[in-house]
Amino acid sequence: MEYALIVAGGKGLRMGTELPKQFLPIGGKPVLMRTLEAFYDYNTGIQIILVLPRGQQDYWRQLCREYHFLLPHVIADGGETRFHSVRNGLALVKTPALVGVHDGVRPFVAREVIARCYDLAAGKKAVVPVIGVVETVRRMEGEGSVTVGRDDYRLVQTPQVFDAELLKAAYEQPYMPHFTDDASVVEALGASVFLTQGNRENIKITTPFDLKIATALIDSCSI
Amino acid sequence: MEYALIVAGGKGLRMGTELPKQFLPIGGKPVLMRTLEAFYDYNTGIQIILVLPRGQQDYWRQLCREYHFLLPHVIADGGETRFHSVRNGLALVKTPALVGVHDGVRPFVAREVIARCYDLAAGKKAVVPVIGVVETVRRMEGEGSVTVGRDDYRLVQTPQVFDAELLKAAYEQPYMPHFTDDASVVEALGASVFLTQGNRENIKITTPFDLKIATALIDSCSI
Repeated sequence: MEYALIVAGGKGLRMGTELPKQFLPIGGKPVLMRTLEAFYDYNTGIQIILVLPRGQQDYWRQLCREYHFLLPHVIADGGETRFHSVRNGLALVKTPALVGVHDGVRPFVAREVIARCYDLAAGKKAVVPVIGVVETVRRMEGEGSVTVGRDDYRLVQTPQVFDAELLKAAYEQPYMPHFTDDASVVEALGASVFLTQGNRENIKITTPFDLKIATALIDSCSI
Repeated sequence: MEYALIVAGGKGLRMGTELPKQFLPIGGKPVLMRTLEAFYDYNTGIQIILVLPRGQQDYWRQLCREYHFLLPHVIADGGETRFHSVRNGLALVKTPALVGVHDGVRPFVAREVIARCYDLAAGKKAVVPVIGVVETVRRMEGEGSVTVGRDDYRLVQTPQVFDAELLKAAYEQPYMPHFTDDASVVEALGASVFLTQGNRENIKITTPFDLKIATALIDSCSI
Protein backbone atom coordinates (compact mmCIF):
# COMPACT_ATOMS: atom_id res chain seq x y z
CA MET A 1 0.00 0.00 0.00
CA GLU A 2 1.17 3.54 -0.74
CA TYR A 3 0.14 6.57 1.29
CA ALA A 4 0.66 10.26 0.60
CA LEU A 5 0.58 12.33 3.75
CA ILE A 6 0.04 15.92 2.65
CA VAL A 7 0.84 18.46 5.35
CA ALA A 8 -0.90 21.82 5.01
CA GLY A 9 -0.40 23.61 8.27
CA GLY A 10 0.45 27.04 6.89
CA LYS A 11 -1.18 30.03 8.50
CA GLY A 12 -0.41 32.09 5.41
CA LEU A 13 0.60 35.10 7.50
CA ARG A 14 3.58 35.76 5.24
CA MET A 15 1.39 36.17 2.14
CA GLY A 16 -0.10 39.49 3.16
CA THR A 17 -3.56 37.96 2.96
CA GLU A 18 -6.07 36.35 5.33
CA LEU A 19 -6.22 33.14 3.32
CA PRO A 20 -3.71 30.40 4.27
CA LYS A 21 -1.38 29.97 1.33
CA GLN A 22 -2.43 26.42 0.48
CA PHE A 23 -5.89 27.76 -0.46
CA LEU A 24 -4.70 30.52 -2.78
CA PRO A 25 -5.66 29.86 -6.39
CA ILE A 26 -2.97 29.60 -9.05
CA GLY A 27 -4.18 29.33 -12.60
CA GLY A 28 -7.75 29.25 -11.29
CA LYS A 29 -7.34 26.34 -8.86
CA PRO A 30 -6.23 26.26 -5.20
CA VAL A 31 -2.61 25.22 -4.61
CA LEU A 32 -3.62 22.31 -2.37
CA MET A 33 -5.86 20.73 -4.98
CA ARG A 34 -2.98 20.77 -7.46
CA THR A 35 -0.75 19.13 -4.87
CA LEU A 36 -3.20 16.30 -4.20
CA GLU A 37 -3.67 15.82 -7.96
CA ALA A 38 0.07 15.36 -8.43
CA PHE A 39 -0.01 12.25 -6.22
CA TYR A 40 -3.24 10.94 -7.71
CA ASP A 41 -1.75 11.34 -11.20
CA TYR A 42 1.22 9.24 -10.07
CA ASN A 43 -0.97 6.46 -8.61
CA THR A 44 -4.77 6.54 -8.70
CA GLY A 45 -4.78 3.89 -5.95
CA ILE A 46 -2.71 5.93 -3.50
CA GLN A 47 -4.27 6.65 -0.09
CA ILE A 48 -4.17 10.39 0.47
CA ILE A 49 -4.19 11.74 4.03
CA LEU A 50 -4.54 15.49 4.21
CA VAL A 51 -3.40 17.03 7.48
CA LEU A 52 -5.16 20.35 8.02
CA PRO A 53 -5.72 22.54 11.11
CA ARG A 54 -9.20 21.99 12.52
CA GLY A 55 -10.15 25.60 11.91
CA GLN A 56 -9.52 25.21 8.17
CA GLN A 57 -11.33 21.94 7.54
CA ASP A 58 -14.80 23.39 6.94
CA TYR A 59 -13.34 25.93 4.53
CA TRP A 60 -11.54 23.15 2.67
CA ARG A 61 -14.72 21.08 2.35
CA GLN A 62 -16.54 24.14 1.06
CA LEU A 63 -13.76 24.73 -1.50
CA CYS A 64 -14.00 21.10 -2.63
CA ARG A 65 -17.73 21.54 -3.29
CA GLU A 66 -17.18 24.84 -5.04
CA TYR A 67 -14.49 23.41 -7.36
CA HIS A 68 -16.22 20.02 -7.75
CA PHE A 69 -13.02 18.48 -6.38
CA LEU A 70 -13.85 14.77 -6.04
CA LEU A 71 -10.41 13.26 -5.52
CA PRO A 72 -10.67 10.76 -2.62
CA HIS A 73 -8.80 11.66 0.57
CA VAL A 74 -9.18 11.59 4.33
CA ILE A 75 -8.52 14.50 6.65
CA ALA A 76 -6.42 14.45 9.84
CA ASP A 77 -6.12 17.26 12.38
CA GLY A 78 -3.09 19.51 12.19
CA GLY A 79 -0.97 19.85 15.32
CA GLU A 80 1.03 22.52 17.08
CA THR A 81 4.09 22.04 14.84
CA ARG A 82 4.77 20.18 11.61
CA PHE A 83 6.09 17.29 13.72
CA HIS A 84 2.78 16.96 15.54
CA SER A 85 0.82 17.25 12.29
CA VAL A 86 2.76 14.41 10.68
CA ARG A 87 2.32 12.27 13.79
CA ASN A 88 -1.45 12.82 13.67
CA GLY A 89 -1.56 11.82 10.03
CA LEU A 90 0.59 8.74 10.63
CA ALA A 91 -1.97 7.41 13.10
CA LEU A 92 -4.20 6.69 10.07
CA VAL A 93 -1.51 4.67 8.25
CA LYS A 94 -1.73 0.85 8.31
CA THR A 95 1.51 -1.13 7.95
CA PRO A 96 3.15 -2.58 5.96
CA ALA A 97 3.20 0.39 3.60
CA LEU A 98 5.25 3.18 2.09
CA VAL A 99 4.42 6.72 3.25
CA GLY A 100 5.42 9.83 1.35
CA VAL A 101 5.26 13.02 3.42
CA HIS A 102 4.80 16.08 1.24
CA ASP A 103 4.29 19.81 1.76
CA GLY A 104 0.82 20.96 0.72
CA VAL A 105 2.34 24.05 -0.87
CA ARG A 106 4.57 22.12 -3.31
CA PRO A 107 2.21 21.51 -6.25
CA PHE A 108 5.00 21.35 -8.87
CA VAL A 109 6.66 18.10 -7.84
CA ALA A 110 7.35 16.11 -11.01
CA ARG A 111 5.56 12.80 -11.45
CA GLU A 112 8.90 11.11 -12.15
CA VAL A 113 10.31 12.42 -8.86
CA ILE A 114 7.33 11.03 -6.93
CA ALA A 115 7.66 7.68 -8.74
CA ARG A 116 11.43 7.46 -8.11
CA CYS A 117 11.10 8.28 -4.42
CA TYR A 118 8.48 5.56 -3.81
CA ASP A 119 10.36 3.03 -5.97
CA LEU A 120 13.62 3.61 -4.10
CA ALA A 121 11.93 3.64 -0.69
CA ALA A 122 10.84 0.02 -1.17
CA GLY A 123 14.50 -0.93 -0.81
CA LYS A 124 16.16 1.99 0.96
CA LYS A 125 13.36 2.65 3.51
CA ALA A 126 14.08 6.41 3.65
CA VAL A 127 14.39 8.50 0.48
CA VAL A 128 14.60 12.27 0.09
CA PRO A 129 14.66 14.34 -3.13
CA VAL A 130 17.32 17.05 -3.25
CA ILE A 131 18.67 19.63 -5.67
CA GLY A 132 22.11 21.21 -5.95
CA VAL A 133 22.90 24.75 -4.88
CA VAL A 134 23.35 27.27 -7.72
CA GLU A 135 24.66 30.20 -5.66
CA THR A 136 27.92 30.56 -3.78
CA VAL A 137 27.33 29.44 -0.18
CA ARG A 138 28.69 31.03 3.00
CA ARG A 139 28.66 29.53 6.47
CA MET A 140 28.27 31.86 9.44
CA GLU A 141 31.03 31.44 12.04
CA GLY A 142 30.85 33.59 15.15
CA GLU A 143 31.08 37.23 14.10
CA GLY A 144 32.15 36.38 10.56
CA SER A 145 31.48 33.93 7.75
CA VAL A 146 33.42 31.82 5.26
CA THR A 147 32.81 30.63 1.73
CA VAL A 148 32.17 26.87 1.63
CA GLY A 149 32.13 24.50 -1.34
CA ARG A 150 28.62 24.54 -2.73
CA ASP A 151 29.13 21.08 -4.27
CA ASP A 152 29.13 19.69 -0.73
CA TYR A 153 25.56 20.90 -0.09
CA ARG A 154 22.06 19.96 -1.22
CA LEU A 155 18.69 21.66 -0.74
CA VAL A 156 16.01 19.27 0.51
CA GLN A 157 12.53 18.95 -1.02
CA THR A 158 9.56 16.64 -0.54
CA PRO A 159 8.05 14.02 -0.90
CA GLN A 160 10.21 12.28 1.65
CA VAL A 161 9.21 8.63 1.36
CA PHE A 162 9.67 6.04 4.10
CA ASP A 163 8.89 2.53 5.15
CA ALA A 164 5.82 3.17 7.30
CA GLU A 165 7.05 1.17 10.28
CA LEU A 166 10.32 3.08 10.34
CA LEU A 167 8.53 6.42 10.13
CA LYS A 168 6.04 5.50 12.85
CA ALA A 169 8.90 4.44 15.14
CA ALA A 170 10.70 7.71 14.42
CA TYR A 171 7.62 9.77 15.27
CA GLU A 172 7.30 8.04 18.64
CA GLN A 173 10.37 10.02 19.72
CA PRO A 174 9.76 13.22 21.71
CA TYR A 175 9.73 16.39 19.60
CA MET A 176 13.06 18.20 19.16
CA PRO A 177 13.45 21.70 17.73
CA HIS A 178 16.06 20.53 15.18
CA PHE A 179 13.47 18.28 13.48
CA THR A 180 13.12 20.51 10.40
CA ASP A 181 11.98 17.72 8.09
CA ASP A 182 11.00 14.05 8.28
CA ALA A 183 14.47 12.87 7.34
CA SER A 184 15.93 14.52 10.45
CA VAL A 185 13.35 12.71 12.62
CA VAL A 186 14.25 9.35 11.05
CA GLU A 187 17.98 10.05 11.35
CA ALA A 188 17.56 10.71 15.07
CA LEU A 189 16.70 6.98 15.29
CA GLY A 190 20.05 6.16 13.72
CA ALA A 191 18.62 5.25 10.31
CA SER A 192 20.31 6.58 7.18
CA VAL A 193 18.58 8.49 4.44
CA PHE A 194 19.06 7.96 0.70
CA LEU A 195 19.17 11.05 -1.54
CA THR A 196 17.78 11.23 -5.06
CA GLN A 197 17.42 14.02 -7.61
CA GLY A 198 14.43 16.34 -7.16
CA ASN A 199 13.08 18.83 -9.70
CA ARG A 200 13.91 22.51 -9.46
CA GLU A 201 10.31 23.60 -10.20
CA ASN A 202 9.19 21.86 -6.99
CA ILE A 203 9.20 25.11 -5.01
CA LYS A 204 7.56 25.62 -1.64
CA ILE A 205 5.06 28.46 -2.02
CA THR A 206 5.55 30.59 1.09
CA THR A 207 5.97 34.20 -0.07
CA PRO A 208 4.29 36.56 -2.57
CA PHE A 209 7.43 36.11 -4.73
CA ASP A 210 6.88 32.34 -4.76
CA LEU A 211 3.27 32.91 -5.79
CA LYS A 212 4.46 34.94 -8.80
CA ILE A 213 6.77 32.10 -9.78
CA ALA A 214 3.95 29.59 -9.34
CA THR A 215 1.64 31.58 -11.57
CA ALA A 216 4.37 31.77 -14.21
CA LEU A 217 4.87 28.01 -14.06
CA ILE A 218 1.15 27.41 -14.50
CA ASP A 219 0.95 29.80 -17.43
CA SER A 220 3.87 28.19 -19.22
CA CYS A 221 3.07 24.52 -18.58
CA SER A 222 0.03 22.40 -19.08
CA ILE A 223 -0.03 21.52 -15.37
CA MET B 1 34.07 57.61 -7.99
CA GLU B 2 31.78 54.59 -8.29
CA TYR B 3 32.19 51.85 -10.87
CA ALA B 4 29.87 49.01 -11.82
CA LEU B 5 31.72 46.12 -13.42
CA ILE B 6 29.08 44.01 -15.15
CA VAL B 7 30.31 40.54 -16.07
CA ALA B 8 28.48 38.88 -18.94
CA GLY B 9 30.53 35.88 -19.90
CA GLY B 10 27.73 33.36 -20.30
CA LYS B 11 27.80 31.12 -23.33
CA GLY B 12 24.11 30.40 -22.88
CA LEU B 13 24.57 26.72 -23.65
CA ARG B 14 22.24 25.73 -20.81
CA MET B 15 19.32 27.72 -22.27
CA GLY B 16 18.69 25.38 -25.20
CA THR B 17 19.25 28.28 -27.57
CA GLU B 18 22.09 29.73 -29.61
CA LEU B 19 21.81 33.15 -28.01
CA PRO B 20 23.89 33.76 -24.84
CA LYS B 21 21.46 34.22 -21.98
CA GLN B 22 22.34 37.84 -21.26
CA PHE B 23 20.93 38.79 -24.69
CA LEU B 24 17.59 37.04 -24.32
CA PRO B 25 14.68 39.47 -24.15
CA ILE B 26 12.43 39.51 -21.10
CA GLY B 27 9.40 41.74 -21.34
CA GLY B 28 10.65 42.95 -24.73
CA LYS B 29 14.14 44.03 -23.65
CA PRO B 30 17.41 42.06 -23.39
CA VAL B 31 18.38 40.96 -19.87
CA LEU B 32 21.73 42.77 -20.02
CA MET B 33 20.16 46.15 -20.80
CA ARG B 34 17.91 45.79 -17.77
CA THR B 35 20.94 44.97 -15.63
CA LEU B 36 22.86 48.06 -16.77
CA GLU B 37 19.76 50.19 -16.21
CA ALA B 38 19.51 49.01 -12.59
CA PHE B 39 22.91 50.57 -11.84
CA TYR B 40 22.23 53.71 -13.83
CA ASP B 41 18.93 54.15 -11.96
CA TYR B 42 20.87 53.94 -8.70
CA ASN B 43 23.46 56.54 -9.78
CA THR B 44 23.40 58.29 -13.15
CA GLY B 45 27.04 59.24 -12.62
CA ILE B 46 28.26 55.65 -12.15
CA GLN B 47 30.97 54.41 -14.53
CA ILE B 48 29.74 51.20 -16.12
CA ILE B 49 32.28 48.70 -17.43
CA LEU B 50 30.70 45.84 -19.34
CA VAL B 51 32.89 42.75 -19.67
CA LEU B 52 31.86 40.77 -22.71
CA PRO B 53 33.59 38.03 -24.76
CA ARG B 54 35.14 39.50 -27.91
CA GLY B 55 32.95 37.37 -30.13
CA GLN B 56 29.79 38.93 -28.63
CA GLN B 57 30.77 42.58 -28.73
CA ASP B 58 29.60 43.30 -32.29
CA TYR B 59 26.29 41.63 -31.57
CA TRP B 60 25.87 43.73 -28.42
CA ARG B 61 26.58 46.98 -30.31
CA GLN B 62 24.04 45.96 -32.92
CA LEU B 63 21.47 45.25 -30.18
CA CYS B 64 22.14 48.69 -28.66
CA ARG B 65 21.40 50.35 -32.01
CA GLU B 66 18.31 48.22 -32.53
CA TYR B 67 16.90 49.04 -29.06
CA HIS B 68 18.13 52.67 -29.10
CA PHE B 69 20.03 51.82 -25.92
CA LEU B 70 22.05 54.95 -25.16
CA LEU B 71 23.16 54.32 -21.59
CA PRO B 72 26.89 55.23 -21.39
CA HIS B 73 29.28 52.32 -20.77
CA VAL B 74 32.67 51.01 -21.84
CA ILE B 75 33.38 47.47 -22.95
CA ALA B 76 36.22 45.23 -21.76
CA ASP B 77 37.16 41.83 -23.18
CA GLY B 78 35.92 38.72 -21.40
CA GLY B 79 38.54 36.19 -20.32
CA GLU B 80 38.85 32.44 -20.03
CA THR B 81 37.05 32.32 -16.66
CA ARG B 82 35.02 34.80 -14.61
CA PHE B 83 38.22 35.57 -12.67
CA HIS B 84 40.02 36.63 -15.84
CA SER B 85 37.02 38.65 -17.02
CA VAL B 86 36.88 40.62 -13.78
CA ARG B 87 40.64 41.23 -13.93
CA ASN B 88 40.31 42.59 -17.47
CA GLY B 89 37.53 44.94 -16.39
CA LEU B 90 39.47 46.10 -13.33
CA ALA B 91 42.30 47.31 -15.56
CA LEU B 92 39.97 50.16 -16.59
CA VAL B 93 39.26 51.25 -13.00
CA LYS B 94 41.08 54.33 -11.62
CA THR B 95 41.64 54.50 -7.85
CA PRO B 96 40.52 55.71 -5.38
CA ALA B 97 37.06 54.32 -6.08
CA LEU B 98 34.42 51.80 -5.12
CA VAL B 99 33.83 48.94 -7.56
CA GLY B 100 30.70 46.81 -7.59
CA VAL B 101 31.07 43.54 -9.49
CA HIS B 102 27.72 42.25 -10.73
CA ASP B 103 26.47 39.36 -12.84
CA GLY B 104 25.06 40.50 -16.18
CA VAL B 105 22.20 38.02 -15.78
CA ARG B 106 20.90 39.51 -12.51
CA PRO B 107 18.59 42.29 -13.72
CA PHE B 108 16.32 42.19 -10.65
CA VAL B 109 18.72 43.53 -8.05
CA ALA B 110 16.82 46.08 -5.94
CA ARG B 111 17.97 49.69 -6.05
CA GLU B 112 18.09 49.75 -2.24
CA VAL B 113 20.39 46.72 -2.23
CA ILE B 114 22.78 48.40 -4.68
CA ALA B 115 22.71 51.59 -2.61
CA ARG B 116 23.33 49.79 0.67
CA CYS B 117 26.24 47.75 -0.73
CA TYR B 118 28.05 50.86 -2.04
CA ASP B 119 27.30 52.85 1.12
CA LEU B 120 28.64 50.12 3.39
CA ALA B 121 31.68 49.47 1.19
CA ALA B 122 32.94 53.00 1.82
CA GLY B 123 33.67 51.92 5.39
CA LYS B 124 33.85 48.11 5.26
CA LYS B 125 35.85 47.84 1.98
CA ALA B 126 34.24 44.52 1.03
CA VAL B 127 30.46 44.04 1.07
CA VAL B 128 28.38 41.14 -0.22
CA PRO B 129 24.56 40.82 -0.38
CA VAL B 130 23.20 37.50 0.86
CA ILE B 131 19.83 35.86 1.49
CA GLY B 132 18.85 33.13 3.94
CA VAL B 133 18.15 29.54 2.94
CA VAL B 134 14.47 28.55 2.89
CA GLU B 135 14.92 24.80 2.41
CA THR B 136 16.39 22.24 4.78
CA VAL B 137 20.12 21.89 3.96
CA ARG B 138 22.17 18.69 3.86
CA ARG B 139 25.95 18.44 3.73
CA MET B 140 27.49 15.56 1.80
CA GLU B 141 29.94 13.52 3.88
CA GLY B 142 31.71 10.62 2.19
CA GLU B 143 29.06 8.12 1.10
CA GLY B 144 26.33 9.76 3.15
CA SER B 145 25.01 13.15 4.15
CA VAL B 146 23.76 14.95 7.26
CA THR B 147 21.19 17.64 7.94
CA VAL B 148 22.86 20.92 8.94
CA GLY B 149 21.33 24.03 10.50
CA ARG B 150 20.08 26.20 7.65
CA ASP B 151 20.31 29.30 9.87
CA ASP B 152 24.10 28.93 9.69
CA TYR B 153 24.14 29.36 5.90
CA ARG B 154 23.61 32.17 3.43
CA LEU B 155 23.28 32.23 -0.36
CA VAL B 156 25.51 34.83 -2.01
CA GLN B 157 24.34 37.33 -4.63
CA THR B 158 25.84 40.34 -6.39
CA PRO B 159 26.74 43.23 -6.56
CA GLN B 160 29.79 42.52 -4.44
CA VAL B 161 31.22 45.98 -3.74
CA PHE B 162 34.85 46.68 -2.83
CA ASP B 163 37.40 49.35 -2.27
CA ALA B 164 39.05 49.40 -5.71
CA GLU B 165 42.60 49.17 -4.40
CA LEU B 166 41.73 46.12 -2.31
CA LEU B 167 40.02 44.43 -5.23
CA LYS B 168 42.89 45.18 -7.62
CA ALA B 169 45.38 43.75 -5.12
CA ALA B 170 43.21 40.63 -4.75
CA TYR B 171 43.06 40.12 -8.50
CA GLU B 172 46.86 40.22 -8.77
CA GLN B 173 46.87 36.78 -7.10
CA PRO B 174 47.15 33.76 -9.39
CA TYR B 175 43.83 32.16 -10.31
CA MET B 176 42.58 29.37 -8.02
CA PRO B 177 39.67 27.05 -8.83
CA HIS B 178 37.93 27.79 -5.51
CA PHE B 179 37.48 31.45 -6.52
CA THR B 180 33.73 31.15 -7.13
CA ASP B 181 32.98 34.81 -6.49
CA ASP B 182 34.84 38.07 -5.85
CA ALA B 183 34.52 37.76 -2.09
CA SER B 184 36.50 34.51 -2.14
CA VAL B 185 39.30 36.24 -4.11
CA VAL B 186 39.45 39.09 -1.59
CA GLU B 187 39.36 36.67 1.35
CA ALA B 188 42.36 34.83 -0.05
CA LEU B 189 44.28 38.06 0.67
CA GLY B 190 43.25 37.76 4.32
CA ALA B 191 40.65 40.56 4.14
CA SER B 192 37.25 40.02 5.73
CA VAL B 193 33.94 40.46 3.96
CA PHE B 194 30.86 42.18 5.39
CA LEU B 195 27.45 40.64 4.66
CA THR B 196 24.25 42.61 4.08
CA GLN B 197 20.71 41.62 3.12
CA GLY B 198 20.08 41.03 -0.58
CA ASN B 199 16.68 40.74 -2.28
CA ARG B 200 15.19 37.38 -3.14
CA GLU B 201 14.06 38.50 -6.61
CA ASN B 202 17.72 39.07 -7.55
CA ILE B 203 17.98 35.71 -9.30
CA LYS B 204 20.76 34.69 -11.66
CA ILE B 205 19.14 33.78 -14.97
CA THR B 206 20.90 30.60 -16.07
CA THR B 207 18.22 28.04 -16.97
CA PRO B 208 14.92 28.00 -18.91
CA PHE B 209 13.18 27.79 -15.50
CA ASP B 210 14.91 31.01 -14.42
CA LEU B 211 13.76 32.66 -17.62
CA LYS B 212 10.14 31.76 -16.79
CA ILE B 213 10.56 33.32 -13.36
CA ALA B 214 12.13 36.41 -14.91
CA THR B 215 9.25 36.85 -17.32
CA ALA B 216 6.79 36.51 -14.43
CA LEU B 217 8.66 39.18 -12.47
CA ILE B 218 8.58 41.56 -15.42
CA ASP B 219 4.87 40.97 -15.98
CA SER B 220 3.99 41.61 -12.35
CA CYS B 221 6.24 44.62 -11.67
CA SER B 222 6.83 47.91 -13.35
CA ILE B 223 10.54 47.09 -13.81
